[in-house]
Amino acid sequence: MMTKNQAKYIQSLSHKKFRDEEGLFVAEGPKTVEELLRLPHMRPRLVYALPEWWQLHAEWQQQPWAQVLDELALARISFLKTPNQVLGVFEKPDLAIRPGGWQIVLDGIQDPGNLGTIIRIADWFGIQQLICSEDCADAFNPKVVQSTMASIGRVEILYTDLIAFVEAHPHRDFIAATLEGTPIKEAKVHLPAALVIGNESKGIRPELRALLHHFVTIPRIGAAESLNAAVATGIILGQLV
Amino acid sequence: MMTKNQAKYIQSLSHKKFRDEEGLFVAEGPKTVEELLRLPHMRPRLVYALPEWWQLHAEWQQQPWAQVLDELALARISFLKTPNQVLGVFEKPDLAIRPGGWQIVLDGIQDPGNLGTIIRIADWFGIQQLICSEDCADAFNPKVVQSTMASIGRVEILYTDLIAFVEAHPHRDFIAATLEGTPIKEAKVHLPAALVIGNESKGIRPELRALLHHFVTIPRIGAAESLNAAVATGIILGQLV
Repeated sequence: MMTKNQAKYIQSLSHKKFRDEEGLFVAEGPKTVEELLRLPHMRPRLVYALPEWWQLHAEWQQQPWAQVLDELALARISFLKTPNQVLGVFEKPDLAIRPGGWQIVLDGIQDPGNLGTIIRIADWFGIQQLICSEDCADAFNPKVVQSTMASIGRVEILYTDLIAFVEAHPHRDFIAATLEGTPIKEAKVHLPAALVIGNESKGIRPELRALLHHFVTIPRIGAAESLNAAVATGIILGQLV
Repeated sequence: MMTKNQAKYIQSLSHKKFRDEEGLFVAEGPKTVEELLRLPHMRPRLVYALPEWWQLHAEWQQQPWAQVLDELALARISFLKTPNQVLGVFEKPDLAIRPGGWQIVLDGIQDPGNLGTIIRIADWFGIQQLICSEDCADAFNPKVVQSTMASIGRVEILYTDLIAFVEAHPHRDFIAATLEGTPIKEAKVHLPAALVIGNESKGIRPELRALLHHFVTIPRIGAAESLNAAVATGIILGQLV
């Protein structure tokens, strides 16, 4: 069953303000929701699904968060054009910055599509943490969650002041992707490191750049002015990890 | 000056059918149009620009294809939300497959955003030709052209039957990106080669795959199910070129 208020509440999670206040995010579709439910650290708050989905997942049917609804009600709460069997509301994981492992540091990545693609890249290469500046797109936006599939649950994503973050880790090897650094194949990197990727058009902001000492570049053979931020992230990690 | 018929004609170039029939495509914005006009092999058919743009480009003002218009008229023909000074109609270059150099072969890349990103990657790495299956998105779609900036003029893009293309080049090293190939760092590649990238969800179609013998993979360390097609293209070229 689904009351009007519940539907309204879930719809409100399309707004970052409400997601932050409630500490929740929405994931949809059988594959993503099932994968998230199987991750031991993920906490579902409510999972709404059609009867046929629950039949396939009898092990969860008795959980306090399990809710049955029909297609009409699912369509009312779904953020998808074509609602797909199940919608889950999960708690945003409570995370702390862990020094030591690989990290990707994003400075002002504004395009949700790029952010989603970078989250998948991080998951592919087994990167533990993604440290985002406060002005990055929100990873828990339903569209980003959708595009990452369940990678959103496997990569730890934190938002923080990058200046303070870099200053707090003076011994960390921060590798900044820029257009005038050392060619990536010649760069001497202390692995695992933290790869810093800048805004799609402006690059890394000057105040942050001033704190960094290690700059790498993907050598350009042709004439394109720049590479997409997510593609650059993938190319550099492909060579370093 | 701009007649109603001219405006209609340019608008019709948003349709692939008309672009193919007329052999034309549209590019917009001062940077892209200027770069395209400076490429020796690009043939402008008509370039519509505001008076201030022509003042900066007096060398072209007397060309038969040069047209002055005002902001209102530009807004009427522009494909952009915010029209930007100049719109050029160019001839689609007449190209032939050139064996020998690096090629990227795209099998059913359907997302225009991915195609645009791959064109920029090709231009970055100096890849000469992009060979697309007939069911790929159209590179001359105004949105794709816009996203590639002037790379569309520097990378040769051809559409053809990939089965016939591969069969016609029995001595070519076709390297297929798949999920179960040789790790890219261990692959022995005869450079320059042709890199084959498959559809975003289905990969390389079985009939084409059956003709290929050389499969490479980006080793996965984490758990993501797949990488975005453009990102995978970038990572593999980053290691091979």
